[in-house]
Amino acid sequence: MPESIRRARAYLSRVAEPPAPALAALVAEQGPVRAAESVRAGTVSDAVGRETSARRTVDRVDEDFRIVHALHGRLLIPEDEEWPSWPFRALSLASAHGVRFGYEPLALWVRGLGHLATLTERAVAVVGSRAASGYGRQVATEFGHGLAEAGVTVVSGAAFGIDAAAHSGSLAAGGPTVAVLACGVDVPYPVAHEGLLDRISRHGLVVSEYPPAHTPARHRFLTRNRLIAALGDGTVVVEAGRRSGAKNTAAATSAFGRVLMAVPGPVTSATSSGCHELLRSGEAVPVSSVAEVVESTGRLGFDLVEATRSREKAPVHGDAMRVFEALGLRRGVSVEAVAVESGVDLPMVRALLPELELAGLAERVDDGWKRSHDSDWRGDA
Amino acid sequence: MPESIRRARAYLSRVAEPPAPALAALVAEQGPVRAAESVRAGTVSDAVGRETSARRTVDRVDEDFRIVHALHGRLLIPEDEEWPSWPFRALSLASAHGVRFGYEPLALWVRGLGHLATLTERAVAVVGSRAASGYGRQVATEFGHGLAEAGVTVVSGAAFGIDAAAHSGSLAAGGPTVAVLACGVDVPYPVAHEGLLDRISRHGLVVSEYPPAHTPARHRFLTRNRLIAALGDGTVVVEAGRRSGAKNTAAATSAFGRVLMAVPGPVTSATSSGCHELLRSGEAVPVSSVAEVVESTGRLGFDLVEATRSREKAPVHGDAMRVFEALGLRRGVSVEAVAVESGVDLPMVRALLPELELAGLAERVDDGWKRSHDSDWRGDA
Repeated sequence: MPESIRRARAYLSRVAEPPAPALAALVAEQGPVRAAESVRAGTVSDAVGRETSARRTVDRVDEDFRIVHALHGRLLIPEDEEWPSWPFRALSLASAHGVRFGYEPLALWVRGLGHLATLTERAVAVVGSRAASGYGRQVATEFGHGLAEAGVTVVSGAAFGIDAAAHSGSLAAGGPTVAVLACGVDVPYPVAHEGLLDRISRHGLVVSEYPPAHTPARHRFLTRNRLIAALGDGTVVVEAGRRSGAKNTAAATSAFGRVLMAVPGPVTSATSSGCHELLRSGEAVPVSSVAEVVESTGRLGFDLVEATRSREKAPVHGDAMRVFEALGLRRGVSVEAVAVESGVDLPMVRALLPELELAGLAERVDDGWKRSHDSDWRGDA
Repeated sequence: MPESIRRARAYLSRVAEPPAPALAALVAEQGPVRAAESVRAGTVSDAVGRETSARRTVDRVDEDFRIVHALHGRLLIPEDEEWPSWPFRALSLASAHGVRFGYEPLALWVRGLGHLATLTERAVAVVGSRAASGYGRQVATEFGHGLAEAGVTVVSGAAFGIDAAAHSGSLAAGGPTVAVLACGVDVPYPVAHEGLLDRISRHGLVVSEYPPAHTPARHRFLTRNRLIAALGDGTVVVEAGRRSGAKNTAAATSAFGRVLMAVPGPVTSATSSGCHELLRSGEAVPVSSVAEVVESTGRLGFDLVEATRSREKAPVHGDAMRVFEALGLRRGVSVEAVAVESGVDLPMVRALLPELELAGLAERVDDGWKRSHDSDWRGDA
């Protein structure tokens, strides 16, 4: 794929603040390269102009790529095989039905070894209050752990409380997990979760619609929530107060026709009142266990096939997989030889090898790098 | 009404173990007096014979009346104005649709001042596990209290755990409550609840399909549960394990077309798992508060009318009301004069006056009995 497409989308992802429906329509019509040229030149309709004029002269593409590459990240675009086209169909369908937040992102900045399309083949969003109770955190951790064991990717927002517990539970079971941020993937937010975000990127993916250095803002959380809802086969609200942001993710889940689930809790606890509201209105079905989540989101026959396939699955993105495959099974291979063999450029190989090492897939030996013993593609060896 | 009818039903209520559908059909066809004569003489169909032959020569009517009168009780029969005909319509309807446990009782032994038809005009069954958690007992107490405050009678089974908490909460708010037993109203079961049953009888009613001295048995609990379900506009299951008897009451509630409600609880608690099962299957709607219970069981416009009417309501049965009305407002009236004035026989007047006193409705003075200050019909003065 021409690098010009990726560069055009990188520019476009910074030029407008999502949601930017007019720009999205322009890209759909003209393709990203021509659309970027028009925006840059200012030769666009008033609607696109309103969305892009403020930032149209800002071109930070090289710098943005430098930042994400330093984090072993990359820009994922709809033209990539790794793009989660299937989950995102819900967005375009919703958009066609006039759902305000139903539009695909122009691109996704990602950090980590995971292969997004594969990771979201079987995924569940687990969300809830930042101000979670001990009960809520316990349930979120158990659900995260159990879903990972069942081969289901946990998607969440890396926030305090329920999100963090769900990611951690998944990681504890060696599962990949996906964090969707409301800021750049280079921005450690919340700061206390820098370590958690690092671990998520090593075993799954940290994803954002926002280019590097973008800081979180209230409207960005709301915009981000639709992606969490779209990437899961369903959403579990573990704990939510009556005004919790999780209810926004819940609304998006319903709008996309995905399964909305809520965990019951003590009726004496304000942090469960939002869940009970969703149950009482009939919007959500109650789930008390991982088995019930799997049952509610399961596609007929899928789980059985999945169980036999899981060992062969490769939730690692293209470059990392090519680097891994270029490694020797027994003897070491030099970094330069890996680059030649894999066709991945040298700086990227240098970036990816330590990540593969952290994921337990590669190891450093005297004469270079080799695959580690018992490595497999799930990164949970 | 001829005393012969009441005596016939007293005999019939002992001669067969409920459910006795053939006997019920005979009574419906011939009336209670002729049916009792046929049963006594043994001139009945094989089906009725199978239900009644073992006890047909047992006639304890006088003794049974003595026992319940000593407890200030009485036998309530369908011919009484106080019979809960409206709630019990659900039973005959269910029976007509082949529901096995859908049949009206032949009579009800009751103990207490309450007027059953009035008490069940607006009533909710609150049931749950004997082995309740602290959480479950707390919710049951709060619901009992709040329902009483909302003018709703709590119906339950006087068992340990949820039942006791619901009755106690209602009593604490000064509300009347109805306990339906699986044994005779003279049998203190469980023994530890003798005091609770006394308090219930003073502020509401203790009710049983079983004649005095009948002891509880497993099948009697199941038979009893249908009456709890029938007497409420709906049933709230506060806590229930997967095999709790409360699920039997829940099934009866659904079979009668009444609203089934379940209280969510921690998914980590086995005592809530039955509730969550009912919610997940869609059999029950979740309720988190008294307001939601009232909303789920409310009949349009009823609650408003009820609020203005509640102070005029007289949930006291006919005899007690007549005795009360025969009392002077300021000066005392002799027991004999009350009997003459009220038309209630002397032993019953002697039995009722202390009960009215305990309920805060009457007081003993030098020259007999008078109404107490600020007494009202709700017995919660």
